[in-house]
Formats: sequence, C-alpha cells, structure tokens
Amino acid sequence: MLLEAARAVFAENGYERATVRSIAARAGVDAAMVNHWFGGKEGLFAQAVLKLPFEPAELVTVLRDGPVEELGSRIVRTFLTRWDGVGGDTFQALIRSIAGHEAASTVLRDFFLQFFTGLLSDLGGDRRELRVALCASQLVGMGLVRYVARFPPMVEAEVDTLVTAVAPTLQRYLTGDID
Amino acid sequence: MLLEAARAVFAENGYERATVRSIAARAGVDAAMVNHWFGGKEGLFAQAVLKLPFEPAELVTVLRDGPVEELGSRIVRTFLTRWDGVGGDTFQALIRSIAGHEAASTVLRDFFLQFFTGLLSDLGGDRRELRVALCASQLVGMGLVRYVARFPPMVEAEVDTLVTAVAPTLQRYLTGDID
Repeated sequence: MLLEAARAVFAENGYERATVRSIAARAGVDAAMVNHWFGGKEGLFAQAVLKLPFEPAELVTVLRDGPVEELGSRIVRTFLTRWDGVGGDTFQALIRSIAGHEAASTVLRDFFLQFFTGLLSDLGGDRRELRVALCASQLVGMGLVRYVARFPPMVEAEVDTLVTAVAPTLQRYLTGDID
Repeated sequence: MLLEAARAVFAENGYERATVRSIAARAGVDAAMVNHWFGGKEGLFAQAVLKLPFEPAELVTVLRDGPVEELGSRIVRTFLTRWDGVGGDTFQALIRSIAGHEAASTVLRDFFLQFFTGLLSDLGGDRRELRVALCASQLVGMGLVRYVARFPPMVEAEVDTLVTAVAPTLQRYLTGDID
C-alpha cells in the first residue's frame, strides 16, 4: 500500500534522500499518479509519516488566497480548524514522535523549513529561515498547550479568540520587525 | 531521600493534593526545613518532578526585579539562559513526559497556571489565565524548536537575537491587547 511504502522509504532514507520514484516503485504504482494525487514528496510525507490533517499543496492555496497583511490570521485559523477537526490525539502523537525519535524530528524540520521558506520567498524580507522557525515555535507551542498539556483557558477558547490573540505574533514574525 | 519522597507523593496524589507535610514525613525530615530550602511545594515539584533548572521562588525575584514594560524580555532571557545552561536533554525529557503521561501534564499545568497567574496578579488586567496560557504556548514552543526539534536558525541564534524577536510577543500577551 502506498502510504506504507512511503513510511518505509522515508524511514530508510530520511526526507531529503527519499524519492517519489522509489516510493512508487516499492508500492507498484505509477510515480506520476503519486505526484498528481498526493502532491508529491511533501504531501506523501505529511500524510504517511506526520499524519498531518492537511496536504501541503492545498495549504499553499489556502494561505495565498488573501492579502499578505492577513497571513498570520489565516495561518492560525487554518492550523486550529484542521487540528481541532482531527482531535488532540493526532497532535499528541506528532509531539511524541518529535520528542522520541531523532529521525522524525529531522524530517519534520526539513519539511517545515522547505515548505514555509518557499511560501515566504514571495514576501521578500530578510532572515527568512529565522522567521519560519519563529512561526513554528508559536504554532507548535499553541498546539502543545491546546491539545497535549491541555491548559484549560487554551482548550476552552474559541478559534476566533485564539486567532485574535495569536495572529499578530505570526504576522510580526513573517513580515514585521524582529530585530 | 527528599526528592524521591516528593516524586512518590506527587505521583500518588497529584500536584493539588500533595502537601509539604506529607512529603517531609515520608522523607523523615522537618517540613519547615523543606519550605525554607526548597521554596515549598512549588519548588519541590519543579526540582523533583519537572527537573526545571530554576526554583520558582528565585524566579519570582528575577522577574519582578525591573520595570513591567520589560517583563517579556526578562522572561525570554531567563528561560533561554537557564535551559541553555542545562542543555537540551532536560527539556526533551520534559516534553516527552508531557506527551507521554497524563499525570505529568496535569501537574505541569497546575504549577504553571498557579505560578504565573500569581505573578500576573500584580499587573491587574483581564483574562489573566488566558494570558498565562498564551505565554506558556510561546515559551514551550520556543524550547521545543530550539532544544528538541532543533531547527537550525533557532539553535544557532544568540540569546540576544531571540530575546529581541520573541520578547514583544510575551509582553503583548502579558500586558497588551489580546482581543
């Protein structure tokens, strides 16, 4: 099965060296089909290994569909609605795998930096990789406190409340003054 | 030994119901001595269970020693210098225990909310518990990305760089506009 083949190839080769071609070959399917339906290597990784509740390709569309001054708001809203939708267990599994396995941590890092740095390249601006890492820190921390450590004010807060509180943070990290 | 007795009592009773008296009794020492040397229940919990690289009582002094407009900056700097000092493994163990054990997560949450909400009570302002939870989300996320997932721009950044970038976030969560 394709996702199992993907998990095996990522585990053996790491994110950088894994190829859609080798995953498709192992699963006995066509590589072009995999690229079309799963959004290529990033999409496969997100679904097979991290089990993220979204496809990277789809996310790019969501995030680009609106003014750049509201990017922080769109990111926080998308993050919360997708993870709320699948429940906290999936996020807990993600954190556990980051804290427990060096390999999972490495692939997540590569994926995140490549994906968001690509998104940010349109915006111009300096210190792009630090900006992406700062965004990651606030998003992962928000997920950890809402879905894993389950701090009551964070669990009970409506999505709108958290978007209002946290979006300016993401917006500043992305396009504002950080030094 | 005192820290072992503390671990056992916290595990059996949870943070709320554990008492310094019962911990001291189990270790065969004087409760007043425990309060004096370990900063009471919070200090024992921080050292015995979470293995935090600071004592809560001492932290209160550090955080109050300066103008309120620089509170965000002092928190970020203290967080980073203390955790940098003990190395990333300790933070990784903390995250692993939050993600793996419901009990650890509950005690951390109680501790964090009590401790920081107390600190914040001097500041006045509304939505105190949400403000504390927002601070927790940014701090824990920063620790996770620097010490556990180890995103290169976050690992390589000087403490000063991160203080400049992240302090305004904490400051807004503590004393600024969040709605």
